[in-house]
Amino acid sequence: MKIGKIGERALINEIAALVAKTADKQVIGIGDDAALTPVSADCWLATSKDMLIEGIHFLLPEITAKDLGYKSLAVNLSDLAAMGAKPRHAYVALALPPETEHEFVLAFYQGMLELAERFNVTICGGDLVASPGPMVISVTVQGEVPKTCALLRRGASAGDIVCTTGPLGASAAGLLLLTHKIQCSQAVRTAALQAHYRPWPRVEEAMWLAQTGMVTSAIDLSDGLLKDILEVLEQNKCGVLLEAEKIPIHPAAVKVAASLAKPAWELALNGGEDYELLCTVKAAHFAELARAYEARFAQPLYALGRLTAEREIRMITKEGKWEKIEFTGFKHF
Amino acid sequence: MKIGKIGERALINEIAALVAKTADKQVIGIGDDAALTPVSADCWLATSKDMLIEGIHFLLPEITAKDLGYKSLAVNLSDLAAMGAKPRHAYVALALPPETEHEFVLAFYQGMLELAERFNVTICGGDLVASPGPMVISVTVQGEVPKTCALLRRGASAGDIVCTTGPLGASAAGLLLLTHKIQCSQAVRTAALQAHYRPWPRVEEAMWLAQTGMVTSAIDLSDGLLKDILEVLEQNKCGVLLEAEKIPIHPAAVKVAASLAKPAWELALNGGEDYELLCTVKAAHFAELARAYEARFAQPLYALGRLTAEREIRMITKEGKWEKIEFTGFKHF
Repeated sequence: MKIGKIGERALINEIAALVAKTADKQVIGIGDDAALTPVSADCWLATSKDMLIEGIHFLLPEITAKDLGYKSLAVNLSDLAAMGAKPRHAYVALALPPETEHEFVLAFYQGMLELAERFNVTICGGDLVASPGPMVISVTVQGEVPKTCALLRRGASAGDIVCTTGPLGASAAGLLLLTHKIQCSQAVRTAALQAHYRPWPRVEEAMWLAQTGMVTSAIDLSDGLLKDILEVLEQNKCGVLLEAEKIPIHPAAVKVAASLAKPAWELALNGGEDYELLCTVKAAHFAELARAYEARFAQPLYALGRLTAEREIRMITKEGKWEKIEFTGFKHF
Repeated sequence: MKIGKIGERALINEIAALVAKTADKQVIGIGDDAALTPVSADCWLATSKDMLIEGIHFLLPEITAKDLGYKSLAVNLSDLAAMGAKPRHAYVALALPPETEHEFVLAFYQGMLELAERFNVTICGGDLVASPGPMVISVTVQGEVPKTCALLRRGASAGDIVCTTGPLGASAAGLLLLTHKIQCSQAVRTAALQAHYRPWPRVEEAMWLAQTGMVTSAIDLSDGLLKDILEVLEQNKCGVLLEAEKIPIHPAAVKVAASLAKPAWELALNGGEDYELLCTVKAAHFAELARAYEARFAQPLYALGRLTAEREIRMITKEGKWEKIEFTGFKHF
């Protein structure tokens, strides 16, 4: 069967089953944002690897070389954040059409270095090859996290509060601005494109959350809230009840959605590429954690619902209307 | 300037200069087969990352999915071998055209697992994305090597003996069999295609050589002896005098070259993809090391020349004729 038909989830499950046969039992591998391997007595080495393809994950020349370098590292650091890990090293493999300008390649690295410097990440190596087709970027990042602190997708249970580190939908709004003719203010355009091209990985927030010991599971929001939360629900065998009016929607997403006569929550729920952290916290701890988080980061930890024993995704609106919802987020195949 | 014009070496040097500004001084980064990062008191973490592109590095359907999986891991393990490192973990990112059969993907992993099991490598994760163009494979491997043992490209000096772990040219002969109509025996065909599709990374030999403390530099032979040795010469500011009749040429390369009326040493010197280890040893240690190596592995450590203070590549033939030679090996751009 063609992979386009079998789908990403089923294919990953088949690969995971094959690979599990020979896996080192000490490794936490496929099924999280990064793999955790034991390299020292106290710390996990967290490793993540994302591949970006021209025409699928980015469009040239719409995105500048600098933004592309920045974003290629940012999406990988976001995976480390989802594990609570401190980033350490990055490795970059590029497949480049031979007609690529060498200034483009240097600007790509400059954009990446801007972010690398911010988080003390060393770019240690990689590979440069010729591409007969699209540009391909593969970044591998390594970080470390104390064994007592690592965040995983599993560990949550019904009753836990679901929360996120920031408002959603702005990156999807940015993508809509690139692909549709939309009238909006310069401020909205700037905010949406910034979110799309320069997502800020929640590394510091995640490390802080991890060391509180109060977070029961975590994932980064890359494919869209609904698709990503499904991963958490599957691993923890539970469902979720989202409160529509509590879902933080980015003001730029509200404006762009309005001008397309779309409901703004569609961008927040299915848009993707938010690179906020989604995590769960025991209900008894949430108020204390949210207070401390806000004191530390001067921004709220947004509660947007709670996990349920019923294995469904449901949303309750302000008017008290309940809806069972389906995700329409990014599909890899 | 287009990267096709500026060339791989100049581009890597520019990137290395950019990246060096923010590099952790404890990291041994760009310029070796793998990067070495400190993760524990006694050991380096060695990380390498190679990207393979359909149409450039492999041809479909010529190569089977199983062989492709095997080879994708083998070329990465060979990079770890060049550092003397013991392989531990692998991460696999695949960009797949949506019409790829899912059996192809599973067979790819089966081929990879064959080799992974042999060296106790755990496949820990990766990424699956859709490709609008060619298939792209990016593998990252991690290994570990005691800080006292790591092999680097630098460390050699004039007078050191240059040696390799096996005969050369068979993989290039295999590629010629795929791209030319050549008459040869089934035994030659099998040996050449085996070398091309199923290279054996010299992991055990490299770890053994590393712990002797007698190896002054090492590199794996991926792009061809002449191109790869240039890396060693540049880093050690020296030249080399090769002895033509001592260069071990694989019998399959001799046969295939003969049927094309080519000199066999061309395949051995410029063919590439041998994945043997090339290393240097102090002249005073070589005889002892070669004896111990042969006793341990039941195969010779082939001496093929020595490093010189004159910064040239020269070859001396059986007849005592000296030649200055130029490499024509694989160019990445």
